[in-house]
Amino acid sequence: MVTEDPNAGLADDPKVQYCESWRLAVETNNAGEWKKVPSRCVDVVADYIKGPQYLTDSKMVARLSHAYAKTVKLAGDDRDVWIFDVDETLISNFLHYTVHGYESRMSNETAYDQWVYTGKATALPWSLWLYRKLQSLGFQLVLLTGRKEHHRNSTEQNLMAVGYRSWKKLILRESLDATKTAMTYKSEKRAELEAEGYRIHGSSGDQWSDLLGPPMAKRSFKLPNPMYHIP
Amino acid sequence: MVTEDPNAGLADDPKVQYCESWRLAVETNNAGEWKKVPSRCVDVVADYIKGPQYLTDSKMVARLSHAYAKTVKLAGDDRDVWIFDVDETLISNFLHYTVHGYESRMSNETAYDQWVYTGKATALPWSLWLYRKLQSLGFQLVLLTGRKEHHRNSTEQNLMAVGYRSWKKLILRESLDATKTAMTYKSEKRAELEAEGYRIHGSSGDQWSDLLGPPMAKRSFKLPNPMYHIP
Repeated sequence: MVTEDPNAGLADDPKVQYCESWRLAVETNNAGEWKKVPSRCVDVVADYIKGPQYLTDSKMVARLSHAYAKTVKLAGDDRDVWIFDVDETLISNFLHYTVHGYESRMSNETAYDQWVYTGKATALPWSLWLYRKLQSLGFQLVLLTGRKEHHRNSTEQNLMAVGYRSWKKLILRESLDATKTAMTYKSEKRAELEAEGYRIHGSSGDQWSDLLGPPMAKRSFKLPNPMYHIP
Repeated sequence: MVTEDPNAGLADDPKVQYCESWRLAVETNNAGEWKKVPSRCVDVVADYIKGPQYLTDSKMVARLSHAYAKTVKLAGDDRDVWIFDVDETLISNFLHYTVHGYESRMSNETAYDQWVYTGKATALPWSLWLYRKLQSLGFQLVLLTGRKEHHRNSTEQNLMAVGYRSWKKLILRESLDATKTAMTYKSEKRAELEAEGYRIHGSSGDQWSDLLGPPMAKRSFKLPNPMYHIP
């Protein structure tokens, strides 16, 4: 095993090695409430998203989700649910973030709104694959997003244009949810779904705030996203 | 963004790329109840543990843990706790696993027992660094391990020999805990600690079963371990 002086700073580590560790810290939620991609990792993150590893990582999550989904016994009463987040889970906004910076959703809401209205987000191919597999298995698909009600039309059009053809519900943030964290808002919506009799077997999201907080899905699947953090 | 036929099998992916995705799936808990390292990844895992990335990943977790710990206001009543798991969290059994295989703790208990009795596990340097930092800050350190009561002496000797000098409690598995999963056993012990008035500010472990289950620590830190899974 390599030994090293533990008092040496992280800044001394080779860049790619450091950025890989930082990305792992984000994906495991060890990073907690992080604000922005470390400046030395901005291009490492772009290379990751554009390259084959992001696709293979996404494929692995989709395959594992599907393997689990196949073990679920569905009651056949249309109450067996799988929840998907939208941004960076079903569709990719990478084209927007390359222009405006990874933190632009939070820092420049006008630019983000304009981007959403264009409806030009692309499908994440392995999420689309999983989506269709789950529909074939008989799951009810619920889309639960931090996008706002005024994004409903453009979101629906974008999703349909890239191949997501139908869903049970598309839940968007209403005005009264505006001040809540994503974790609180999404937990409340899962609680409402359960109160309506839905059984939440699985949940897929690129943020831990998509997945954590009571009640949780029976299995949660964290998709990679080293670009931004939503609390 | 790279596009690819989503119906292609994972087995078609280049080995290192596949194994990186598998490792990420393990670290994020997407892999769920996995049994053993995929055969094509056995040497990739060994290279990771022996190489610089494991050390940098461990350093990142330790630094993030310390950054959080520094923000905690301690009451000064000796009830502010940080929990550490032992194996692959404070000390490394890599020497054992290279000889007996990564799944030998579960499959060959005799060999594992003999290894524990030798007391030759090495310190994970960044965990030792964090351990001392937390002691300096005034945290009470509780060691909560799946090792059994009959391992107490050899575990204490091993820990002290590699630099872990003192702790508040070392909790080992008693006979009545034998049939419980690690997650249940460790959750029960956290509940007992809280009932005794301890406030669990942080928890460090290489298994999700070290960290999940009510009550959880205020912040949990997942250390890397691609060698084996404990439910």
